[in-house]
Amino acid sequence: MGKLLRVNMSRLDVQLGALPEKFEGLGGRALTSQLVFDEVPPTCEPLGVYNKLVMAPGILGGTGLSSSGRLSVGGKSPLTGGMKESNAGGTTATKLARLGIGALVVEGVVEDNRLYVLLINKDGGELVPADELKGLGNYPLAKELRRRYGERVGVISIGPAGEWGLAAAGVANTDRDGAPARFSGRGGLGAVMGSKGLKAVVIDDSGAQKVSVKDPATFAALCRELHNDLVANSTIQGYGKYGTAGILDLVNELGALPTNNFREGRFARAGKINGEALYQTITQRGGAGKPTHACMAGCLIKCSNVYPDTNGHAVVAPLEYETIGLLGSNCGIDDLDVIARLNYLCNDLGVDTIETGAAIGVTMESGLIPFGDVGGAEKLIQEIGQGTVLGRLLGNGAVITGRVLGAKRIPTVKRQAMPAYDPRAIKGNGVTFATSPMGADHTAGNCVRGKNQHSPEGQVTLSFNSQVLMAAYDSLGLCIFLGAAFNPKLDHVRRLVMAKVGLELPPDYLTQLGKRVLQAEWAFNQQAGLTSAQDRLPEFMLEEGLPPFDLIFDVSSAEMDAMLESIQRDGQ
Amino acid sequence: MGKLLRVNMSRLDVQLGALPEKFEGLGGRALTSQLVFDEVPPTCEPLGVYNKLVMAPGILGGTGLSSSGRLSVGGKSPLTGGMKESNAGGTTATKLARLGIGALVVEGVVEDNRLYVLLINKDGGELVPADELKGLGNYPLAKELRRRYGERVGVISIGPAGEWGLAAAGVANTDRDGAPARFSGRGGLGAVMGSKGLKAVVIDDSGAQKVSVKDPATFAALCRELHNDLVANSTIQGYGKYGTAGILDLVNELGALPTNNFREGRFARAGKINGEALYQTITQRGGAGKPTHACMAGCLIKCSNVYPDTNGHAVVAPLEYETIGLLGSNCGIDDLDVIARLNYLCNDLGVDTIETGAAIGVTMESGLIPFGDVGGAEKLIQEIGQGTVLGRLLGNGAVITGRVLGAKRIPTVKRQAMPAYDPRAIKGNGVTFATSPMGADHTAGNCVRGKNQHSPEGQVTLSFNSQVLMAAYDSLGLCIFLGAAFNPKLDHVRRLVMAKVGLELPPDYLTQLGKRVLQAEWAFNQQAGLTSAQDRLPEFMLEEGLPPFDLIFDVSSAEMDAMLESIQRDGQ
Repeated sequence: MGKLLRVNMSRLDVQLGALPEKFEGLGGRALTSQLVFDEVPPTCEPLGVYNKLVMAPGILGGTGLSSSGRLSVGGKSPLTGGMKESNAGGTTATKLARLGIGALVVEGVVEDNRLYVLLINKDGGELVPADELKGLGNYPLAKELRRRYGERVGVISIGPAGEWGLAAAGVANTDRDGAPARFSGRGGLGAVMGSKGLKAVVIDDSGAQKVSVKDPATFAALCRELHNDLVANSTIQGYGKYGTAGILDLVNELGALPTNNFREGRFARAGKINGEALYQTITQRGGAGKPTHACMAGCLIKCSNVYPDTNGHAVVAPLEYETIGLLGSNCGIDDLDVIARLNYLCNDLGVDTIETGAAIGVTMESGLIPFGDVGGAEKLIQEIGQGTVLGRLLGNGAVITGRVLGAKRIPTVKRQAMPAYDPRAIKGNGVTFATSPMGADHTAGNCVRGKNQHSPEGQVTLSFNSQVLMAAYDSLGLCIFLGAAFNPKLDHVRRLVMAKVGLELPPDYLTQLGKRVLQAEWAFNQQAGLTSAQDRLPEFMLEEGLPPFDLIFDVSSAEMDAMLESIQRDGQ
Repeated sequence: MGKLLRVNMSRLDVQLGALPEKFEGLGGRALTSQLVFDEVPPTCEPLGVYNKLVMAPGILGGTGLSSSGRLSVGGKSPLTGGMKESNAGGTTATKLARLGIGALVVEGVVEDNRLYVLLINKDGGELVPADELKGLGNYPLAKELRRRYGERVGVISIGPAGEWGLAAAGVANTDRDGAPARFSGRGGLGAVMGSKGLKAVVIDDSGAQKVSVKDPATFAALCRELHNDLVANSTIQGYGKYGTAGILDLVNELGALPTNNFREGRFARAGKINGEALYQTITQRGGAGKPTHACMAGCLIKCSNVYPDTNGHAVVAPLEYETIGLLGSNCGIDDLDVIARLNYLCNDLGVDTIETGAAIGVTMESGLIPFGDVGGAEKLIQEIGQGTVLGRLLGNGAVITGRVLGAKRIPTVKRQAMPAYDPRAIKGNGVTFATSPMGADHTAGNCVRGKNQHSPEGQVTLSFNSQVLMAAYDSLGLCIFLGAAFNPKLDHVRRLVMAKVGLELPPDYLTQLGKRVLQAEWAFNQQAGLTSAQDRLPEFMLEEGLPPFDLIFDVSSAEMDAMLESIQRDGQ
């Protein structure tokens, strides 16, 4: 049985206990969402005393399986007003798993507006006053905490944006190199952490046991087979060369690459920011640059990279597709050096690059600065750091920014900005954006590699199958990129879990797990006041033909609602 | 049968036809809410092509009955996201009624971003291009339109805030003196008007017939009796002397006067801004000042006033309690001259003084400027007019302002700011704020003159009875202040309607009418995605004791929900 570390910030109290039996066999998103459902009043103020911030490694976290070390962070979202889970790679989930901690629950809020760091090691947890870290960006913060507590600690942290309660603030995790660039970026969970007065969690797993696996031989054999499939898979190989940016050409071909605030789906200068351009730039400049890089130990996908400047000094690691799409083409910006710099600034402040890119996009739409204005975009992000009114506006995300500045097109669902897939041209993702309890989120069920993307037919089934499976992956702690190799052998994944936990699991275990997660999330959202009226794309996407294919989003709402209701009812 | 004037701003087309039979006997709020329910898709973008702006005089509008000339304006609110009706006095409803126009429906949006004025006279309506009026404040606008079209026209208009789509923008109506200071202020209907490209409606009722009354003798007799009651009523006499500000002392005594952003319920310097202070200031300064003033012909209440500066020049007319509460004590401001000036600025820009006062309050709460900062408050309103980012932020209301600036206390329900009654100390108003389909709105069911205001007992019944009756008053076109004299003789009101329309009406006619209105509004809201989760006061009001009586809002949510459901079901 795993342990539950409960931290009450009102009382400055830390309790280590057993994870209650009802959570047995859960991890990752399944655990964070169930805990939030059980313990957070759905109508509570997201930045108030009743919300909780929950973190959990996945069910397979800390085992030797490739890419299994994602950390789920959950709570009520200040952005969507609903249940939020956002997960990220890095080293922190593995360290928590090694310490036997199944879940960390942070509740209450500090009463004196002070800041704390939570230290976790093999003996439990301790809150350390840390007012001197106020306002520090994630990079200098991680550096300072590693100086204080050792190079090998993992750090979960927020930048100033989280301290200030900005709804685009994310939670950063350190990677293998100690860089705080693996983000639970979506939904403003960094603001929830900040509201509680928690600046960082430092995890020292020295002296920890290996994660227990009930049937190590079977586990190892299954891992071996899946790992072999992984390294032989051409999609996975593409991630290793081009990173996630490898997808950009496909999305641009489909006419789904957000360009100038989702006005167009094809960016004329895509060749300057695509996977090939990224690869060439990195390899030609050399120095600290790396076209491939793993965020966690043992990852065989290595979709990360280190982007260098012209002198070969690292600018940011990684530079990812979503960031390129939102801070790049969506803002009419075609310069990887600029995008990398904006990315670094966002990471340091601790704001989601998707939400921030979308907020800059609607700012350009409103006419405050023109599309393609590189200096203007950089200045906007600097304003977030300066805490100006405009900066706070942007830091609260695309909906508020767009409304205040009077933008006509605001590309969001449930008040969360869309990732870099225009749903008119990849309609399966439109269904995911519309119906996911998370709001617009590609990781909730990415259909970019589906078929007949422009047709409304079959997209509802495609999206919901993907949403269910992704909820299971998120609960196992697995990177969703594993899907390219693992999805053909899902029963191996089930058997991996069986070998890990030593229990017989039903053949449809993953489907059951995924549905259970979604059901808890939908139920929470319903009680929080979200209805099917919010399961819709913005009006302009139902009306305005998207160039170059003149596509609108024409998947039937009734079909989406019916599928959603059938899954909600399923198993009740 | 009345007429329906339908104006399509996309096609620049004006059609005058008969009001469909199903609307027979409806007027005011009953008619605007039913038309919005029938014709506006509940999930539509409030500032988009599918929303409609509907205006209607009340069922008794244009008759000789005192205070019966209120104009209802309706549509989907950009502030609450639900159904909105906001009504105001002045001369416009009477003029529409005299022209036989039961409803004006404005639909579509201009395609070329141009501005128009709609001229209405006995021959119908006509759209006149009016780009030269862009950016004009309500006061110079009304002056210019009366210069062009004659001193006797009535004007319905928006200031720059409406043109710019700010969610706190209201719709102004001219009073008997031609001043555009009678506001359908709540819920952002000015932004809806602006989104359509309609700057003003000019109503010339010359040559119009008298409003038809089927049984003039009975009508006149009933009017006479009610009018006698009215002038003999001490509450009504108070309105004539002190205006609406007469209520301030009572609210302050109850500990419900919003002070420093609803942190306190009693304002130490209330004596500087109460009804007596207002009366003394006006009478001592003389000149254009008038302690009592009627906004429409034939009004016997005369709650309006003209507030003069030290030289006796008119600053604003009227200066009302809500404005004094929100722009005054709520901002820690105790100077009527300042409040009058802020009021004038708000009117000219065309923003709701309640929403704007609350937005300034949360700005002070956030620490951007201190409570009581007169110069700072004035500068904030000036920024709205300058269209700065901060100005646009404030112009979008208290919720967005508070969230962006990081205020902990945001006194709103359904994203609309609370009027000047802290619901912890006048709990009936708390029920109204929480459950009204309008969001926080005292006119939806004001319980300030109830009993045992501090106790949760009986408040649900009190509020819902008032909500039903006020919905009926709003549909008749009656000023709710009539209630003090009319409520003891409600059957006279029913008989007035019978005499007017020449039909037999059931004894519970007013209750039926009010419930029907609320049912349509709740049904629209439900389809728009509002649920009982939004029928709640902000968390801090359930938690933080309000000085001086240390009160929290403790009316049971279950009791409110049950009452609401029973009325929703009633008659279905």
